[in-house]
Amino acid sequence: MTQSDNALDLARHLIACESVTPARGPVFDMLEQMLTPLGFDVHRFIRGEGPEGSEEEAVENLYAIRRGPAGSHHFAFAGHVDVVPPGEGWASGAFTPEIRGDLLYGRGAVDMKGAIACMVAAIADIPAEAGSISFIITGDEEGPALHGTRALINLMRERGDIPGVILVGEPTSVNRLGDMMKIGRRGSINIWLDVGGVQGHVAYPHLADNPLPKLIAILGELDALVLDEGTQWFQPSNLEITEIDVPNRAHNVIPGQAKARISIRFNDLHSGASLSEKVTAIAEKHGGRARPVISGEPFLTPPGVFSKIIADAVKAETGAAPEASTTGGTSDARFLKDIAPVIEFGLVNATMHKTDEAVAIADLDTLSRIYRRVVLATFAED
Amino acid sequence: MTQSDNALDLARHLIACESVTPARGPVFDMLEQMLTPLGFDVHRFIRGEGPEGSEEEAVENLYAIRRGPAGSHHFAFAGHVDVVPPGEGWASGAFTPEIRGDLLYGRGAVDMKGAIACMVAAIADIPAEAGSISFIITGDEEGPALHGTRALINLMRERGDIPGVILVGEPTSVNRLGDMMKIGRRGSINIWLDVGGVQGHVAYPHLADNPLPKLIAILGELDALVLDEGTQWFQPSNLEITEIDVPNRAHNVIPGQAKARISIRFNDLHSGASLSEKVTAIAEKHGGRARPVISGEPFLTPPGVFSKIIADAVKAETGAAPEASTTGGTSDARFLKDIAPVIEFGLVNATMHKTDEAVAIADLDTLSRIYRRVVLATFAED
Repeated sequence: MTQSDNALDLARHLIACESVTPARGPVFDMLEQMLTPLGFDVHRFIRGEGPEGSEEEAVENLYAIRRGPAGSHHFAFAGHVDVVPPGEGWASGAFTPEIRGDLLYGRGAVDMKGAIACMVAAIADIPAEAGSISFIITGDEEGPALHGTRALINLMRERGDIPGVILVGEPTSVNRLGDMMKIGRRGSINIWLDVGGVQGHVAYPHLADNPLPKLIAILGELDALVLDEGTQWFQPSNLEITEIDVPNRAHNVIPGQAKARISIRFNDLHSGASLSEKVTAIAEKHGGRARPVISGEPFLTPPGVFSKIIADAVKAETGAAPEASTTGGTSDARFLKDIAPVIEFGLVNATMHKTDEAVAIADLDTLSRIYRRVVLATFAED
Repeated sequence: MTQSDNALDLARHLIACESVTPARGPVFDMLEQMLTPLGFDVHRFIRGEGPEGSEEEAVENLYAIRRGPAGSHHFAFAGHVDVVPPGEGWASGAFTPEIRGDLLYGRGAVDMKGAIACMVAAIADIPAEAGSISFIITGDEEGPALHGTRALINLMRERGDIPGVILVGEPTSVNRLGDMMKIGRRGSINIWLDVGGVQGHVAYPHLADNPLPKLIAILGELDALVLDEGTQWFQPSNLEITEIDVPNRAHNVIPGQAKARISIRFNDLHSGASLSEKVTAIAEKHGGRARPVISGEPFLTPPGVFSKIIADAVKAETGAAPEASTTGGTSDARFLKDIAPVIEFGLVNATMHKTDEAVAIADLDTLSRIYRRVVLATFAED
């Protein structure tokens, strides 16, 4: 069969396995059935033991490796087989892959079962002697990600299987396949702010202690912060006030408690810890408290050999090199960057998470060929 | 009967008429039965026609006058027979007046059925020839006050019955009977603030428009306002931020709408209109909107003949003159000041609105005698 047929078929099989996050079972069975015949050694394991719907709900992960000769390169693909819930209003079943016109419809078509199908198709005819290839696949990327890629990294560390580079198949293309790859992502932190006071009557303010002027002072100072001007590869870090929660039905009551939340997306001039410290100092200066929750540290794989390999492959297949970007939300690259240079490159993200998520059938073919070129070019490096 | 017995008996009769705001019927029947034998011409009327529990629910009002000789002074007592709900946990029934020790217990004992009893007792033996006396009594002071004292003022204007002075029987005493009278009250205004924006994802702030920095700027500027330094008779005007309502369960969403509320208690250097204008200008400067609701304008009856008459009467009965204050919340004096100089003086307010509201029996006697002195001294003025 041709690679095109292959990626399309594989994508349809994966989409047909319903796998709303956190994913377990059938979708992993399907992926295992694809990789085992290609010579991969497949390791599956489940982590988490909380009740269904909780942050600790069990998730499945899969690590597969086909080892090349001793001393050969180790190229890793990373991604996830869980998907976001389908929502309402699909023209066909979200988990019943359907071709209409030039498109394949189904939840996960671009984010990112389509890309995983392309990865498998891409390496199907690469001989094992060319180098080591691994798949780092989680069932919990769209959820809390507590027991997903982090657990896979632990396993790889225990095994001593540290890849030379990692390609994450997130849908990074914006308007057409290949127009953007992500060489980094900003970090993300949410910080809850709290100011205590003493409730009282508006007519007797000396008997009360209104926490709101303090909260306003904290938020005013935070809003005025210029965290940085951006870097060569990152846009400026950005702080948003996302919530203020001081409900009060009584017109004549001074509230006794004030709460707010901010969210910061930050570049590699900062860390979650440095921002926690900065915000905490401002909160405490005005009599408040800060409770930071770091969602992810920033990562950057500065342009170099790996990004050039990807750019060249994209250009060879599409005629234009991708923009190297660090925009957007977080992905599991925030964890993977700890073990190897990581770049994200995948399908067009226009329909991801939406009703009638769809991928251009031609893009599956093209992306398979791009991935194939990337693996081969990596193996060809000195 | 002695005045003491009289005020105590009258207070018990009034308390026994359950009259949670808005009041109608029995409590007015009782007051009418007290005033008619004393030669008063009693006018009762009902205003409002909304459903029960609404701001427009019907309220009863009573205006009673006993006219003196042509050209004589006209002294008016003002007050209310409605009470706040009893709440839970009374030692005896809230509407079953009970004497325990030196105290008379019952809802309204100090706020202000006790004072109304004292007014009636005070004038019981003053001959009609001494001057005109009126009672301006509403059943809606503790509620929205839409159809209460304002309607009574309209009636008096229609009749051409404009008193020379008005004494409101609110419980103005703090630690002991007679330690404070109110010669004014601050005005009160609540202003709702609104800032619109565009909701969006925290990772893509350029596609959103967070209304919170604008709201913070508005509130920061409002909080920094120094409205005034106070006047000879008023404490400084005070602005409190009482609510900020920008709930947001999603951590990664920039909110599209922000709301807040402030409450200003202000002295006679301002008016509701001047403050509305000032706050609206600040809100609009930062892209927000302001919706003011004026609860009451400030009033001041500067110290003079009337306050001296009250002070002398208090000193004669208690040994010490009252402090002339403008502190505290609003009262119906905010309306009455439009037709005559008004001062508030009444019982000790320690238990008002609380469980086991109670008045010292001796205070009923003393207050009756103070009120009597005040009426007689007013009539004795040139």
